Amino acid sequence: MSKGFKVGILGATGNVGQEFIKVVVERKFPVSELRLLASGRSEGKLMKVGDKQIKVIEAKPDSFKGLDLVFVSVSTEMSKAFAPIAAAAGAICIDDSNAFRMDPGVPLIVPEVNMDDAKTHKGIIAGPNCVTIPLVMVLNQLNKVNKIKRITVDTYQAVSGTGIAAIEELRVQTPQVLAGEKINPTVYPHQIAFNCLPEIDVTLANGYTNEEQKMVNETRKIMHVDDMLISCTCVRVPVFLGHSEAVHIDFEKNITPEEVRNILAKAPGVKIQDDMKAHLYPMPIDAANKDDVYVGRIRQHNTLKNSIALWLATDNIRKGAALNAIQVAEEMARRGWLTPKG
Amino acid sequence: MSKGFKVGILGATGNVGQEFIKVVVERKFPVSELRLLASGRSEGKLMKVGDKQIKVIEAKPDSFKGLDLVFVSVSTEMSKAFAPIAAAAGAICIDDSNAFRMDPGVPLIVPEVNMDDAKTHKGIIAGPNCVTIPLVMVLNQLNKVNKIKRITVDTYQAVSGTGIAAIEELRVQTPQVLAGEKINPTVYPHQIAFNCLPEIDVTLANGYTNEEQKMVNETRKIMHVDDMLISCTCVRVPVFLGHSEAVHIDFEKNITPEEVRNILAKAPGVKIQDDMKAHLYPMPIDAANKDDVYVGRIRQHNTLKNSIALWLATDNIRKGAALNAIQVAEEMARRGWLTPKG
Repeated sequence: MSKGFKVGILGATGNVGQEFIKVVVERKFPVSELRLLASGRSEGKLMKVGDKQIKVIEAKPDSFKGLDLVFVSVSTEMSKAFAPIAAAAGAICIDDSNAFRMDPGVPLIVPEVNMDDAKTHKGIIAGPNCVTIPLVMVLNQLNKVNKIKRITVDTYQAVSGTGIAAIEELRVQTPQVLAGEKINPTVYPHQIAFNCLPEIDVTLANGYTNEEQKMVNETRKIMHVDDMLISCTCVRVPVFLGHSEAVHIDFEKNITPEEVRNILAKAPGVKIQDDMKAHLYPMPIDAANKDDVYVGRIRQHNTLKNSIALWLATDNIRKGAALNAIQVAEEMARRGWLTPKG
Repeated sequence: MSKGFKVGILGATGNVGQEFIKVVVERKFPVSELRLLASGRSEGKLMKVGDKQIKVIEAKPDSFKGLDLVFVSVSTEMSKAFAPIAAAAGAICIDDSNAFRMDPGVPLIVPEVNMDDAKTHKGIIAGPNCVTIPLVMVLNQLNKVNKIKRITVDTYQAVSGTGIAAIEELRVQTPQVLAGEKINPTVYPHQIAFNCLPEIDVTLANGYTNEEQKMVNETRKIMHVDDMLISCTCVRVPVFLGHSEAVHIDFEKNITPEEVRNILAKAPGVKIQDDMKAHLYPMPIDAANKDDVYVGRIRQHNTLKNSIALWLATDNIRKGAALNAIQVAEEMARRGWLTPKG
């Protein structure tokens, strides 16, 4: 990877786009050209990239020429429009949107879990939703040792998952609620400050929200487990950064918390924080701005010997989005599946 | 109930104690004497009761003479010390603490669920924990129609469940975090503003917190279902008032969301809020200061035809504590199990 890649970031001014830039610099991802692409209204905006300033250009069909790699974090509609164009122009697109995740021709990749699937890509590789990534990183290692039959998950999701406007809404609304002032929610349908909203993304005909159904579908696709029973409730909570998940796992055979700890202690990208005497457990404010998935509260179901409950927290913008995409590119380069066109 | 009762409130200055006073006045619970009892440091404090002011007196072993009824909301240790004394003095104690809930000789009562159990009391009746009450109000009606085999519950609990100091901690800490100032948590082991804490009450040898184990034990006792499989994770979230719960229920036989809605539409104390098109679902800020348990997001498991997921929210101080205790007294009076000694 000594020679750099020509890299585009589509959606560079967004929440995840900014994190892409941060992580690319931080990890010294080898870049010979960095093209910051966004919608027309950000054209000309200067963005800090390490110690340089780079001008944002409007994404157009001809914006991708010569690029080796494009990180995409825009709306599903924008991804559907632009990713195929970028791929046709010869770049590998790593797409963070929901546009292609369940497309049978598009690999859906968490590098620690199913990197081999990436080999079959046809120009587009999808990154999973922010609540799926930490979940499969934990489940996959356990499933290798003791087949998982069923999971039930409830999430505690930060507003940064919605975007910059949602962070601002929580920041502005919070003191207004404390002061007893009238609030004016625009991003969320209800007050988010000091409240919980069990509605993320649109609701489907089966009564699940799309956010919930994504977790079901993506987990099965990534782990190649079509028969795993999965239900979840996805909830927005007044947290800025860091998604948490309460996870309940039924295994084929009996399993102890010690076995789970031993397996997860060796799991790449996973760190155990589990000492209740020291009040040590994963928390969103601790997971924020870190790379790892934090796991704690590991305990056996109080009746079932083949069932484990645990709690996890992750930075939803970093490992939940930008970092995961960059790790896909790093690993592809390492395996020789991605080389600079020169 | 035309003749009033001589009523004591032990823990009158606390969060639940104040709610007792409010609800007694609001519901015109027939009171001929109201004795406000608290620890020595509140002695002499004047509290508003309707349009009157009543002076708080220090709770001592001889404070309960002549009372018909004592509502108790103090620490487990204080309850253990005082409730037997009050009962020996001839009052019926309705205790909101954890002191007697699992005592085989003490009925644990949610009036809508197991009022008949109250008949066997020996002077003390316990009220369940704030997350158990709304849960059994929903489960019990469903269980009558289709036996419940297993539930998995994750909670989103408000700081008011911890007490007045915790409300103050969230109120003071929130603007400090927004301003980037140093915070000083004293009630919780970590920052609660913009964070989630998967630790409520002490942790037991089996890895569950006492809050979680209480839900397991109390649900089984109230519903007379020793074989129901129950697991849960209890989480404190930055919400002032109103506990929410994500509930996943496995039934013996298949069941549809429509059947669940029909059953719950007739359940006493339960209101359905379930219209995702209108963004209508239970939220803690809506449940606050209301009497009912609100239920929504009712849907069938995406694979299992005998499994239902739902979401509920309740005022944890009102139906979760004070209101439930007063409803126990009202129903006992109605049934002739509680009469003024005169």
